[in-house]
Amino acid sequence: MERDKKEMTEIEEIIEKLVDFRNERDWEQFHDSKNLASAISIEAAELNELFLWKDVKESELVDKEKIKEELADVFAFAFLLAHKNGLDVKQIVLEKIKKNAEKYPVGKSKGTAKKYSEL
Amino acid sequence: MERDKKEMTEIEEIIEKLVDFRNERDWEQFHDSKNLASAISIEAAELNELFLWKDVKESELVDKEKIKEELADVFAFAFLLAHKNGLDVKQIVLEKIKKNAEKYPVGKSKGTAKKYSEL
Amino acid sequence: MERDKKEMTEIEEIIEKLVDFRNERDWEQFHDSKNLASAISIEAAELNELFLWKDVKESELVDKEKIKEELADVFAFAFLLAHKNGLDVKQIVLEKIKKNAEKYPVGKSKGTAKKYSEL
Amino acid sequence: MERDKKEMTEIEEIIEKLVDFRNERDWEQFHDSKNLASAISIEAAELNELFLWKDVKESELVDKEKIKEELADVFAFAFLLAHKNGLDVKQIVLEKIKKNAEKYPVGKSKGTAKKYSEL
Repeated sequence: MERDKKEMTEIEEIIEKLVDFRNERDWEQFHDSKNLASAISIEAAELNELFLWKDVKESELVDKEKIKEELADVFAFAFLLAHKNGLDVKQIVLEKIKKNAEKYPVGKSKGTAKKYSEL
Repeated sequence: MERDKKEMTEIEEIIEKLVDFRNERDWEQFHDSKNLASAISIEAAELNELFLWKDVKESELVDKEKIKEELADVFAFAFLLAHKNGLDVKQIVLEKIKKNAEKYPVGKSKGTAKKYSEL
Repeated sequence: MERDKKEMTEIEEIIEKLVDFRNERDWEQFHDSKNLASAISIEAAELNELFLWKDVKESELVDKEKIKEELADVFAFAFLLAHKNGLDVKQIVLEKIKKNAEKYPVGKSKGTAKKYSEL
Repeated sequence: MERDKKEMTEIEEIIEKLVDFRNERDWEQFHDSKNLASAISIEAAELNELFLWKDVKESELVDKEKIKEELADVFAFAFLLAHKNGLDVKQIVLEKIKKNAEKYPVGKSKGTAKKYSEL
């Protein structure tokens, strides 16, 4: 990729690095959407394993280095899946926040973890 | 949050919106690291469900709107977990790419999906 | 447990062994429903990792020993969660088959992987 | 299947029902090992969702009917994957218990949730 870094957003920069890493290894052939989604799930499970059998308090004492590693893997595959499907991460998250603001109006959802379908 | 938007990175902006959404609903009490990690996993599974029973070709025909929705949820909880643990998303992903470059040297890993432990 | 093995069903025998293993280690304190459900998910992800980046054909060539190990872990935590909640595994699966037979009538669902909501 | 029920074990009976249900709908074509493993994961996530944002105490108050439904789905796909790979569920779980007894000797593991690699 030859684009001027100055014009790139932070997320575009991250994705560029991930794509370069992938292309150098000729891994695009494996990175279809189905496998990328599965990879996100697998990395998310490794993240969950850090907290398994721990209560909430103990969970906050988990080694940040390990959280960093596993969360980075989740992000890496999530960014690659966004890229694969031409999705703008900032845009889709902001849109989702708007949608959720309708499903979870402050008046009804304040202080409760209930699902919108039970509010 | 009062920070000047001009000084914020794209990811800081996204996280600010997520945190504002959460705080308006007084949901911080539920968003401990263990539950956030679990939420990432649950949303990742909803993403995987879009591709279930489909082959790779059919998977690329899945409605992008649905991928957008589920992937946005994965990102939302992943950003919140990064925030909760004071992790800089760009930094942790770039560090992970460096680490993986050592685990997967181009010469050994080119064109193969084998795990580093089997290379 | 002192019950006569001859009166026990196969699944009761498995669960007895799992519970004995757990009790000898004084692990019941960790085995609440939430953590057991998380453990199932984590083991299921290790199972999925065996198939990651592989197509359907290659997936059937995965080492059966590894499938055995990971699937056994899924079953172990699933049996423990059933036990914890006083659920009879045979009964709940047979009930679910009946329910699914209504959601997926043969005439509509034959040969298609569509979800019942799309039939 | 024509086998005499009296000779079948409980698990063989469950699997027979699952296979009959599947065959009536001509779904064997979708039930390769990779997709079955993914299905286990997806159902396990639906199970986890029941406990999300809840503490351990609240988790034990979750509607048993819902746990029943989601756990039944986990078991259904786990049994089908065992069947697909010619694995005897009782045997693989009992073997895993033996293996774990070596990894987690009572003396070292009693009362602690530490992973064997950290004992």
